[in-house]
Amino acid sequence: MNDKLIEIGKNAKAAAYKLNLLDTVTKNRILNEFAIALGQNTELILSANQKDLANATDMPSKFTDRLKLTSQRITDMAEGLRQVAGLADPIGDIDKGWENDAGLNIEKKRVPLGVIAMIFEARPNVTVDASALTFKSGNAVILRGGKEAINTNLALAEVLRQVLKANQLDENAIQILHDTSHDTANDLMHLNQYVDVLIPRGGAGLINAVVKNSTVPVIETGAGNCHVYVDKDAELQMAIDIVVNAKVQRPSVCNAAEKLLIHRDVAESMLPAIAQALEDHGVELRGDEASRQIVSSITPATQDDWSTEYNDLIMAVKVVDDEQAAIEHINQYSTGHSEVIISDNYQSGQEFLNKIDSACVYVNASTRFTDGFEFGFGAEIGISTQKLHARGPMGLNELTTTKYVIRGNGQVRK
Amino acid sequence: MNDKLIEIGKNAKAAAYKLNLLDTVTKNRILNEFAIALGQNTELILSANQKDLANATDMPSKFTDRLKLTSQRITDMAEGLRQVAGLADPIGDIDKGWENDAGLNIEKKRVPLGVIAMIFEARPNVTVDASALTFKSGNAVILRGGKEAINTNLALAEVLRQVLKANQLDENAIQILHDTSHDTANDLMHLNQYVDVLIPRGGAGLINAVVKNSTVPVIETGAGNCHVYVDKDAELQMAIDIVVNAKVQRPSVCNAAEKLLIHRDVAESMLPAIAQALEDHGVELRGDEASRQIVSSITPATQDDWSTEYNDLIMAVKVVDDEQAAIEHINQYSTGHSEVIISDNYQSGQEFLNKIDSACVYVNASTRFTDGFEFGFGAEIGISTQKLHARGPMGLNELTTTKYVIRGNGQVRK
Repeated sequence: MNDKLIEIGKNAKAAAYKLNLLDTVTKNRILNEFAIALGQNTELILSANQKDLANATDMPSKFTDRLKLTSQRITDMAEGLRQVAGLADPIGDIDKGWENDAGLNIEKKRVPLGVIAMIFEARPNVTVDASALTFKSGNAVILRGGKEAINTNLALAEVLRQVLKANQLDENAIQILHDTSHDTANDLMHLNQYVDVLIPRGGAGLINAVVKNSTVPVIETGAGNCHVYVDKDAELQMAIDIVVNAKVQRPSVCNAAEKLLIHRDVAESMLPAIAQALEDHGVELRGDEASRQIVSSITPATQDDWSTEYNDLIMAVKVVDDEQAAIEHINQYSTGHSEVIISDNYQSGQEFLNKIDSACVYVNASTRFTDGFEFGFGAEIGISTQKLHARGPMGLNELTTTKYVIRGNGQVRK
Repeated sequence: MNDKLIEIGKNAKAAAYKLNLLDTVTKNRILNEFAIALGQNTELILSANQKDLANATDMPSKFTDRLKLTSQRITDMAEGLRQVAGLADPIGDIDKGWENDAGLNIEKKRVPLGVIAMIFEARPNVTVDASALTFKSGNAVILRGGKEAINTNLALAEVLRQVLKANQLDENAIQILHDTSHDTANDLMHLNQYVDVLIPRGGAGLINAVVKNSTVPVIETGAGNCHVYVDKDAELQMAIDIVVNAKVQRPSVCNAAEKLLIHRDVAESMLPAIAQALEDHGVELRGDEASRQIVSSITPATQDDWSTEYNDLIMAVKVVDDEQAAIEHINQYSTGHSEVIISDNYQSGQEFLNKIDSACVYVNASTRFTDGFEFGFGAEIGISTQKLHARGPMGLNELTTTKYVIRGNGQVRK
């Protein structure tokens, strides 16, 4: 364990104890000052970003697109900060309160988690988004971004830290690791004494590595092998609209659909039109034997396809015997993110909602709605695909825990 | 990974999907049948327990006391099962529901976690308690008890499984590992594909080993280095009553107090009487220099004492300069279980409640109240000392998660 990291952990914990006591008005004022400071420091941030881009000339354009900042993107980040300032503060809420048999007044009170660590990849906006959400929810944050964005991330964090300092607040509420080595990331995953929760954000490789190695409790986010099941009682046009929206509107994100299951009874009548609509949007289709007999342009799917999250304009298709077979396939291969049934049959819809074991289960709507903003949370720190603590889109509330506050007048246990 | 364990995992998952759909009336009827079956099989269970006791002749009496069953203890277990039948079923509750901007009806619905694994030590009653609580909350359970109790645990689990079978339910809702080797326990900690949550119950050694090794999400329970802080505005008699109750009523459990902190201003006037009351109950006191100058029978505490959970009639004493020093000491050394301030000062009480970072924080009451039954939950699966998912006493609700159930009529994302 490296000493520098232990110091960062200690500093974060000390800052967390102070943040915990900060009132909402002050937190909102600081968030608005963060926004102003980003605007004022646009040149400085863009010049740091230029350094990162200059080091990334060998990278694919998809990568540099994510890395690149512009004045507009900085303005958007600032707008995001102002939006977080406008959200309700969960801290201090009493979830429930009662008097027990001994006359103790027990309250279950919402409090910050404490210190949250985030390990993320190339998008520098995570530095600002994560800082805003953890700050608003009274948590200290330790950020570890990718080495490709290090100059940008440091510049962004420094702007925020200067605002904290200028307001006589502990700037260690927001810390970013200068050292982006794997060893230090690994040490961060074992900093149980100071880190309460670790949230990885990035691709499947990053998330699996964190889940496997971390002894700090992890919230797993973002793996989305999402399914759309077209039932025998589906409306064709609705099926086309939803499948196309779920697959092509933004194929790179976790709530995009990756698999299409279709009931055998309607495969012949509906699959050709659905496949055509997808292909018109440039989607490559891979499928099982039954689907290929109906639509000849579908190439053969391998066993691996059923569990793969493409994040691309590819979709795998399978003809299923009935709804139960669709449910079993989904529960076996899904990452537990979002699944949809398209059906006008009441029983089929209920069955699907009850039996599918995923964070979000839909009847007749696109998987693309699985999102903190679309759900109305006003913010999103990620989408949890685990069952502990938080499941589905996570907003401010998911960055908190509770403590029992108990007031007595001398009670002892009999 | 051993094949037998994978089969157990698969069977548990299959059972979980069925349990998820079981209605409350059926679950309660089965729980009552469990209770009847335990009574009917008393002889069989006691004879299995005799085998375990015969193998444990070298063990200390404290250990065999925990292992030993009697007809009365079996009757008590059966009574516990009937009580669980009487509790409210959290499954199916809608925590909240709303319509989003796109007109989707979103419900946050309470559902079982799925498959819960428990690793526990010598108490065979855990087999029955854990089976009852996981069954009532719609979860399948994989139990791994200590090898010293294997015959008893197998007999108990078999009685419950026979009831499931006789009712045409999947008996794999309750499975117990015949193989109590460390290797298999370690494999269980890595059975992520089938196990949703792992709850260890036992001493600090077991819990630390699970937290360190498990890739399955863990709920950490039961480490209790609990503090009582006697403030300068404490009432002496209340302080004596609470400290004695917290320390001596049941010293072996996690909610017993282990540390006494006392404000410098009242140390001379109050510590002698408190120490005397503790010593009258056979408590050995260890303390810092300041406490030893006031009460000569206190032996010197070492640095290790401040972080040790004795689970015994031992208490360490420290004189602190003020409340802030008490809070800092507690936040540094506590396991985050339960802490008490004894004070009639409003400000001091508020300060303590706000600044202490533990699952349960009390003013003027004994730490012994941190308990699912005392809180009014009607049951307890353990006391969580972590911040994710559940914190403090865990009842049925803490054995559930949520899923978002979303009903639309063709919505796609703009």
